[in-house]
Amino acid sequence: MKFFQAEGLKKIASDIFAACGTPEGEAKLVAAELVEASLMGMDSHGVMRIKWYFDEIQRNRIKPGASIRIEKETPTIAVVDGGYNFGQVVGLRMVEIVSRKAKEANISCAVCRHCHHVGRLGSYVQKLAERNLIGIAFASCVKEGHFVAPWGGREGRLATNPLAYGIPAAGNPMVLDMSTSMISEGKIRFLMHQGKDVPSGCILDAQGQATTDPKAFYGPPKGVIMPFGSELGYKGFGLGILVEAMGRILGGEALSDEYSFLNMVCLIAVDPEAFSGKSVFTSLVEEFSGYLKSATPAPGFDKVLLPGELDFSTREARLKEGIPVPEATWKTIVKTAEKAGVPLPEGIS
Amino acid sequence: MKFFQAEGLKKIASDIFAACGTPEGEAKLVAAELVEASLMGMDSHGVMRIKWYFDEIQRNRIKPGASIRIEKETPTIAVVDGGYNFGQVVGLRMVEIVSRKAKEANISCAVCRHCHHVGRLGSYVQKLAERNLIGIAFASCVKEGHFVAPWGGREGRLATNPLAYGIPAAGNPMVLDMSTSMISEGKIRFLMHQGKDVPSGCILDAQGQATTDPKAFYGPPKGVIMPFGSELGYKGFGLGILVEAMGRILGGEALSDEYSFLNMVCLIAVDPEAFSGKSVFTSLVEEFSGYLKSATPAPGFDKVLLPGELDFSTREARLKEGIPVPEATWKTIVKTAEKAGVPLPEGIS
Repeated sequence: MKFFQAEGLKKIASDIFAACGTPEGEAKLVAAELVEASLMGMDSHGVMRIKWYFDEIQRNRIKPGASIRIEKETPTIAVVDGGYNFGQVVGLRMVEIVSRKAKEANISCAVCRHCHHVGRLGSYVQKLAERNLIGIAFASCVKEGHFVAPWGGREGRLATNPLAYGIPAAGNPMVLDMSTSMISEGKIRFLMHQGKDVPSGCILDAQGQATTDPKAFYGPPKGVIMPFGSELGYKGFGLGILVEAMGRILGGEALSDEYSFLNMVCLIAVDPEAFSGKSVFTSLVEEFSGYLKSATPAPGFDKVLLPGELDFSTREARLKEGIPVPEATWKTIVKTAEKAGVPLPEGIS
Repeated sequence: MKFFQAEGLKKIASDIFAACGTPEGEAKLVAAELVEASLMGMDSHGVMRIKWYFDEIQRNRIKPGASIRIEKETPTIAVVDGGYNFGQVVGLRMVEIVSRKAKEANISCAVCRHCHHVGRLGSYVQKLAERNLIGIAFASCVKEGHFVAPWGGREGRLATNPLAYGIPAAGNPMVLDMSTSMISEGKIRFLMHQGKDVPSGCILDAQGQATTDPKAFYGPPKGVIMPFGSELGYKGFGLGILVEAMGRILGGEALSDEYSFLNMVCLIAVDPEAFSGKSVFTSLVEEFSGYLKSATPAPGFDKVLLPGELDFSTREARLKEGIPVPEATWKTIVKTAEKAGVPLPEGIS
């Protein structure tokens, strides 16, 4: 494991994306989102994606600088066409759109089509919460990402379909970002890179047998991820369906074998100001947080942690101590920088 | 176990509620909701609640016929004061409110305060879906119902906080109605009535030890229910927090030791017509359903079932064969009818 300061990794990533024709502002924005995910401890959506984004640009699947078009718009809703731009560029544009609409109309919703990987879904709802809006997000994925079995089935029919929310608070917002499967594909990949096993109960091999070997999942032939919930997996399956309905079907996107783009996102923003008022809402969130944390810890736990609390403290620690990057991941970044003709910043190797 | 036709049970329930001063229309409406829950197989929210509702009226906790007031309203949102009426009366009024607003403004949200037990949460989103709206619902509960431990804690800090959705389809809508805990309190009560154990991994006794004995849960002293998700219970905990934020805090209701009312509900309606259009949406839902159901069944399963599919087929069967009611539950209904001075309909005993 190597450790890097956030600023250095941001510079490498943004230089790489800029070298592939990404406008400077957007290159910086995508780099910042990846590094932020790494800072928050969500390594599977962090700097390990630099190589993949670079490759996707070469394959013409990410179209840097593509203009983002609003297909349909009313005072409360929008259908956004991302033009195959980076998912982060599209997602942040959607944050702007739903923020503005929710502040004016109390509640709003935007869906997008034709954008690439959106990265850390929690980032968008966190930004809404930081603007004193409740944010709820759903992200579906094209068939290529359908690793997750429906409840009762043993073939992939859903992606890990994450949902996320952000709740405004006096300090850090509460942010939950969860896949509706037992594990995310990114995490399996991360474990495989580290030579580790997958926890039991999460994946089946291609024959439908339980396994903990990440390689048996990737195949070929491919295995599947189980929906979230273990013996109550029908709930996770049900949540995955909601994500698909909001994140894809609402935007009018059919199932297709074509790859062409990746995530489809739905973002809802609700303004507490229109209901009980911002200050009442925030103080009740504080009261509730204190109440939750006052519970006697269960055996094996030190204390009750709120959604996002661990991530924000990981961020603090990594800002000081650096972001840990496995050797294998670091090698892919160095190689990608070479391919892009980008020198590493001074002092980084 | 005894079996009863839906109509007979509806008449008993509505006669009992009417005998306690409930206006006839509202008595019929509440009775219909309870029987509908029993028909759909959600026995814990069905006719077994008749006795409790009767008792709650006697205790002045349900105020039959109370007027429902809209505290705050904009074209997209509403804060509703239920006046301590039956939850079903308030919930169905909220369905009217969000339907009208969503048809006009594309998306809408209502929260309510001061209503009693709302019964089957899925009923409200199902009604929205039957009007071609996506419905999402959250229901929190006063402290008295805080049976569920936060992740990492072993004292109750949340109710079983259900969430539900309804997705319009060509045939029956997809309807998910799930608690964010390992089991609902109603189900533990139902198992206890039947003399059965609770599945393992769902509850702890008052000392924080795992148990399967429903009596060890009810105490005194009380045990706790675990949040949904087994070893990933932080996700169920996170969902429970979202339910609380939307279902209580958004409406400006503080934590209180006072009982005074019961559920607090949030209902969101989204009109697909405003996005991709109703017919595109419905046909994509059909395509998606077929795709999900085309997965090869996993060992131990016959086929993939969609959310609500089992409930709708249970409904068909129970309409024909009658609603099964355990002897103990039936006795409470007979005794309640006696207390209310209501004769059982002819042919029912």
